Amino acid sequence: MDHHTRLDNALRGKPVDRPPIWFMRQAGRYMAEYRAVRERVSFLELCGDADLACEVTCQPVDRFGVDAAIVFSDILTIPEAMGQEVVFEKGHGPSLPKPVRTRADVDALVQPDVADALPVVPKTLKLFRQARPHIPILGFTGAPFTLLCYMVEGSGSKNWLHVKQLLFGDPDTAQLLLNRLADVVGDYLQSQVDAGAAAVQMFDTWAGMLSVHDYERFALPAAQRALARVSGAPRIYFTRDTSPFLHLVARTGADVIGLDWRTEMARARSVLGELPVQGNMDPVALYAPPEDITARVNRICDAAGPVGHVFNLGHGVLPTTPLEGVEAMIAAVHARAGA
Amino acid sequence: MDHHTRLDNALRGKPVDRPPIWFMRQAGRYMAEYRAVRERVSFLELCGDADLACEVTCQPVDRFGVDAAIVFSDILTIPEAMGQEVVFEKGHGPSLPKPVRTRADVDALVQPDVADALPVVPKTLKLFRQARPHIPILGFTGAPFTLLCYMVEGSGSKNWLHVKQLLFGDPDTAQLLLNRLADVVGDYLQSQVDAGAAAVQMFDTWAGMLSVHDYERFALPAAQRALARVSGAPRIYFTRDTSPFLHLVARTGADVIGLDWRTEMARARSVLGELPVQGNMDPVALYAPPEDITARVNRICDAAGPVGHVFNLGHGVLPTTPLEGVEAMIAAVHARAGA
Repeated sequence: MDHHTRLDNALRGKPVDRPPIWFMRQAGRYMAEYRAVRERVSFLELCGDADLACEVTCQPVDRFGVDAAIVFSDILTIPEAMGQEVVFEKGHGPSLPKPVRTRADVDALVQPDVADALPVVPKTLKLFRQARPHIPILGFTGAPFTLLCYMVEGSGSKNWLHVKQLLFGDPDTAQLLLNRLADVVGDYLQSQVDAGAAAVQMFDTWAGMLSVHDYERFALPAAQRALARVSGAPRIYFTRDTSPFLHLVARTGADVIGLDWRTEMARARSVLGELPVQGNMDPVALYAPPEDITARVNRICDAAGPVGHVFNLGHGVLPTTPLEGVEAMIAAVHARAGA
Repeated sequence: MDHHTRLDNALRGKPVDRPPIWFMRQAGRYMAEYRAVRERVSFLELCGDADLACEVTCQPVDRFGVDAAIVFSDILTIPEAMGQEVVFEKGHGPSLPKPVRTRADVDALVQPDVADALPVVPKTLKLFRQARPHIPILGFTGAPFTLLCYMVEGSGSKNWLHVKQLLFGDPDTAQLLLNRLADVVGDYLQSQVDAGAAAVQMFDTWAGMLSVHDYERFALPAAQRALARVSGAPRIYFTRDTSPFLHLVARTGADVIGLDWRTEMARARSVLGELPVQGNMDPVALYAPPEDITARVNRICDAAGPVGHVFNLGHGVLPTTPLEGVEAMIAAVHARAGA
């Protein structure tokens, strides 16, 4: 079965010879080839140059034989396109020196035309399709709520005090920002489908810090609004800490649900029914002995069943991950053919 | 209804006039009285002095009229009693400069007699009972798995690489350490019950970074082993990120389950049946306007129902929490009397 058919079938709940595998952040620091590129250019330069982005997108495909690529980019291109400065300092996470915290701050944001403001990812997708036509490539974006988190807090955070103060203290302004973000996110995903993405993934990484009530009030409608603007390819929705929200993520309108590693596959299946899923091995298990990795892959695949499952990690691969662990995981998934 | 009866009834699923309320880290930096004590003594000095620990334990009782105190201490007294150095540097979390990572490291640990090695908390409990006889006081400890996390990693961590490398790479050594910890934890809790604790809480703060399979394999049996050594007072088991494990925490043997704020109260009730619960308001909601806080308190109490619920936050109160928010939460719980 070719890579395109295997991924597309799995995403649509149709029969496959084995689950397809790709994994989050598969083009990243754990690979020497990637580090070599990053010695020459900064992270932002890499995200802004379609040729370089295509080069690193190809790296894990060429080395490991994964079944799909994911376009190299960063979720904070959207806040930038809306006029908010984003800074990456070496050894730190991203920071946004002028956070958005009031109605006036939201009103001052640009509502960009995505074709003009966000051209690099669609261009990278087209380059990749020429470079590796036999491999499907996924587009991606941050979800509206997760983008709001960075824009309001100004950086990653443990407790997200500013975000929750806005949500709970001025919910109308929070909703306004979420709606504006949802429209940009949706149009951005559609531009990636139009450029030939085989599927698109929307990352709602920080939604898991919300109570279920607040998820349903803020993050869910924004995710629904964004995804409703996209058609023509399967849409995957990933949340870290998915477990409390499982019954609600089924309502995002997504075609496929990405599961973090704390979510039990069997429970996900029982809550989500026939909705295809993606995941969900603990990324830190890649530091374990190969036989432990193989057992984990098989446990997840057995619990997921043969249909409607894309194998993935439950979160991004870590920068110090040993290549042997990655290879053991991929070999174990490949060995599911005919299992 | 007096405070002792209200707490004890709620913990045992018997009728109450309203849910009792106390909250995690209620004696802490958000209170000026506490900060005044900490200007004179370090955190470690405070934990090591029963008179001072009793003084700060009384502070939230006296200021807010909560229904219960929790003894002031730190969970890392157990690694110290087992011979591992623990360092608190100002502005940082705790660190353990010589982490435990091999069989030889585990073999080198002391198996302490808790009456000799851990006398401060039982002494503090007795002092508090003399000072505030009308208020019940809870004992506490870290759970075996959460103590292992600090002992192996040497500090708090985002990804717990060393912990998971031990668990997955040398599970026998991990189990040995968990068993040894469980015995100390159990005896320590029993010594607190013997000193007059009205109930005891075991914090499994970091168990939530495990997949359900690994929770069931490592954290759950250790929690069971510790709790099985304790009788004579209700035993509360708290996990952060409880949601994925709800069906398993019911098997710890705990009398009461502490819920984090991401866990939906209605789902907890449906999974846990008649097992009493504690929780579970988002600590960051205390920064919200009072009317939002009141609505959240009522939503949680309504979902929990009138029996078998101790009101609490879903995690410790934060150091910058406004007193007005705390007061609004407590007033809303008090107003449940006759609701």
